[in-house]
Amino acid sequence: MNPDPDYSAAYVVIRTDAPDGHEGHGFAFTIGRGNEVQKAAIDALRPMLIGLPLAETLDDMGSFWRRLVHDSHLRWLGPEKGVMHMAISAVVNAMWDLKAKRAGKPLWKLLADLTPEQIVDLVDFRYISDVLTPDDALDILRRSDAGKAEREERLRARGYPAYTTTPGWLGYTDEKLVQRCEDAVNQGFSQIKLKVGGDLEQDRRRLELARSTCGPAIRIAVDANQRWDVPTAIRWINALAPYEPWWIEEPTSPDDVLGHAAIAEAIAPIRVATGEHVPNRIVFKQLLQAGAVSFVQIDAARVAGVNENIAILLLAAKFGIPVCPHAGGVGLCELVQHLAMFDYVAVSAELDDRVIEYVDHLHEHFVDPVVVRGGHYLAPTMPGFSAAMKPETITAYTYPDGSAWQDIRHDRV
Amino acid sequence: MNPDPDYSAAYVVIRTDAPDGHEGHGFAFTIGRGNEVQKAAIDALRPMLIGLPLAETLDDMGSFWRRLVHDSHLRWLGPEKGVMHMAISAVVNAMWDLKAKRAGKPLWKLLADLTPEQIVDLVDFRYISDVLTPDDALDILRRSDAGKAEREERLRARGYPAYTTTPGWLGYTDEKLVQRCEDAVNQGFSQIKLKVGGDLEQDRRRLELARSTCGPAIRIAVDANQRWDVPTAIRWINALAPYEPWWIEEPTSPDDVLGHAAIAEAIAPIRVATGEHVPNRIVFKQLLQAGAVSFVQIDAARVAGVNENIAILLLAAKFGIPVCPHAGGVGLCELVQHLAMFDYVAVSAELDDRVIEYVDHLHEHFVDPVVVRGGHYLAPTMPGFSAAMKPETITAYTYPDGSAWQDIRHDRV
Repeated sequence: MNPDPDYSAAYVVIRTDAPDGHEGHGFAFTIGRGNEVQKAAIDALRPMLIGLPLAETLDDMGSFWRRLVHDSHLRWLGPEKGVMHMAISAVVNAMWDLKAKRAGKPLWKLLADLTPEQIVDLVDFRYISDVLTPDDALDILRRSDAGKAEREERLRARGYPAYTTTPGWLGYTDEKLVQRCEDAVNQGFSQIKLKVGGDLEQDRRRLELARSTCGPAIRIAVDANQRWDVPTAIRWINALAPYEPWWIEEPTSPDDVLGHAAIAEAIAPIRVATGEHVPNRIVFKQLLQAGAVSFVQIDAARVAGVNENIAILLLAAKFGIPVCPHAGGVGLCELVQHLAMFDYVAVSAELDDRVIEYVDHLHEHFVDPVVVRGGHYLAPTMPGFSAAMKPETITAYTYPDGSAWQDIRHDRV
Repeated sequence: MNPDPDYSAAYVVIRTDAPDGHEGHGFAFTIGRGNEVQKAAIDALRPMLIGLPLAETLDDMGSFWRRLVHDSHLRWLGPEKGVMHMAISAVVNAMWDLKAKRAGKPLWKLLADLTPEQIVDLVDFRYISDVLTPDDALDILRRSDAGKAEREERLRARGYPAYTTTPGWLGYTDEKLVQRCEDAVNQGFSQIKLKVGGDLEQDRRRLELARSTCGPAIRIAVDANQRWDVPTAIRWINALAPYEPWWIEEPTSPDDVLGHAAIAEAIAPIRVATGEHVPNRIVFKQLLQAGAVSFVQIDAARVAGVNENIAILLLAAKFGIPVCPHAGGVGLCELVQHLAMFDYVAVSAELDDRVIEYVDHLHEHFVDPVVVRGGHYLAPTMPGFSAAMKPETITAYTYPDGSAWQDIRHDRV
């Protein structure tokens, strides 16, 4: 589905006149063309930020989020989906980066230190209150309040489990697939993921190779990137059943709640995962209501940032469904680790079957890159949301004047 | 939900080097801020059009649609929703306007003259084939092939039924509401619509006034513009039941298929309508599958233009659910009448319970404005999609240099 990605980001820097000099960084990740559309959408939000009183705004991030998401004019362009929602994500996340830097804490810790009441204030329950009320959310958070300190300690000591997509890209030779599977196991990963959906016979062969290389103890998830219609998905996945895929990810359109439910029923006990393209908490709510997913794959920068992801973590906790974040791209690993760690310490209080995706791409551009050791993300310690790219990266890759662009011949209109 | 709209449009003109000099016009309707984001999204599509061979492209509009919608980079910004999808709508509709002008036919007639096979070629069945296959679509269209000539004749003679939203805006005095209800009845409308959801007691009073003014024979629909969560919607609508609303429109989020289904079940026999903000055929499919809607309200410029609306007409026909298009805004009446008329002549072959929304706003800016007489839209006769604004309107209202902007003080950043 994404044959020629050109990883890009519409990058936001929020500056203030506070003497601390902190900046908030955030971004909307894109795969190339259209990055300028994200930039235009972020620019449309600019008037809503300029001149805001800093401390009051950061103290009431729930209201800030609502002001952006429910702006009646901009809402028309969604509502709550696509370009405009991703732009809000970039801005909201940048504000959280700023807030965490000012607090001197990594974001996961800042969130985990909030009271249940403060967390509930961050969440907009509009359109989800039929399934999750503020009282439900308080119950979940208060229940998890016990044991927070122990979980934080465990997290700092052992990190958060990861899985790797590195072995599984389409187009690898068998040798490369086997080599990368061996590497993954040797590096301590207990789960890998393979892309599927191009050709059934090849998928079978690749899964068989991966299974025989990794052994029966390693979980092998497969990912179709929305390639199938419902009947094809059911047929194809059932044909892969002998290789015991741990989950099938994005079997069809992210908008198709009923389609996912039909697939889940027809392929059980294989389980369905989705979320990286699910537009908002309202669709996640329904995927959970319909029993359509067994894993919720939040993305840090598609729904409207930290606040909406907290709503989704709470929805998943209500249904007892594990959250296994999507990552990769540019900086998505850096962001989403904070949300998963907050989930563990303060929301679901669980690690069973929870894993964060890991892709070993582009981390060298970040000031506070993820650290993955022994198949685990280590808990970030630097204040902020780990969103900031290095100044030299920003200078070199800013379009069109950055040095990295100067060698590229632009022959498209 | 939309307290201060500032009706706007990102307007597309497609020019060719053909000697006929025809242009294709289309637009994405917005309510003000964010119009520039739509413009950026339309600009992102420009390279996909420049230099295309004209006749071949217009001869295979199904492929043209797929090329735009499934572009892998731009798809990332949706997929198939929000800003990018609305931009594709503007471009696809402009191409249809051009095609119809070159054919010398109004769009509804151009479409109605296609064979079932040609119509099916326009539709992308991706993600809907579990419910509607190409063969299903052919069956529907072939069944409706009989009687096409008679229906076309009837359409030309009597027009297509309309309903009016003119009496029903929030904030009118009782006198104005009564006067406009009387006007609507006198003008021959058999259905009106009232906005609701601000204040329950006021809604009761306004509905009672409207009912007593219009009498029992006039259908009174109500429209909540997504204001409620599911439990509130059920409570509120049931409280309005004594006034026998014909439908409740947009009771909650357009993304909430299961929410609409729960509402529909809890408020029967009052029926649910939605669609103006439904992002694509995949969500419409589910609303129909779930029995969540009794009326499908297509919008001409939110899903990806004519082709996707044909998919939705076919889905609705498969379920026997009437299509009652959303209109209003800028030029939406002009566009959507063509789709409803095509539906009647060639797809559903039905008029029962079908009505196109009519709002008496801004038609004076169009070259080929709608004509509504006796509560009916008269069938357009001018070649094209009725999308073109008058040259003097375009000149005066183009931002920021148009004369209409010169008197307005811009004090926003």
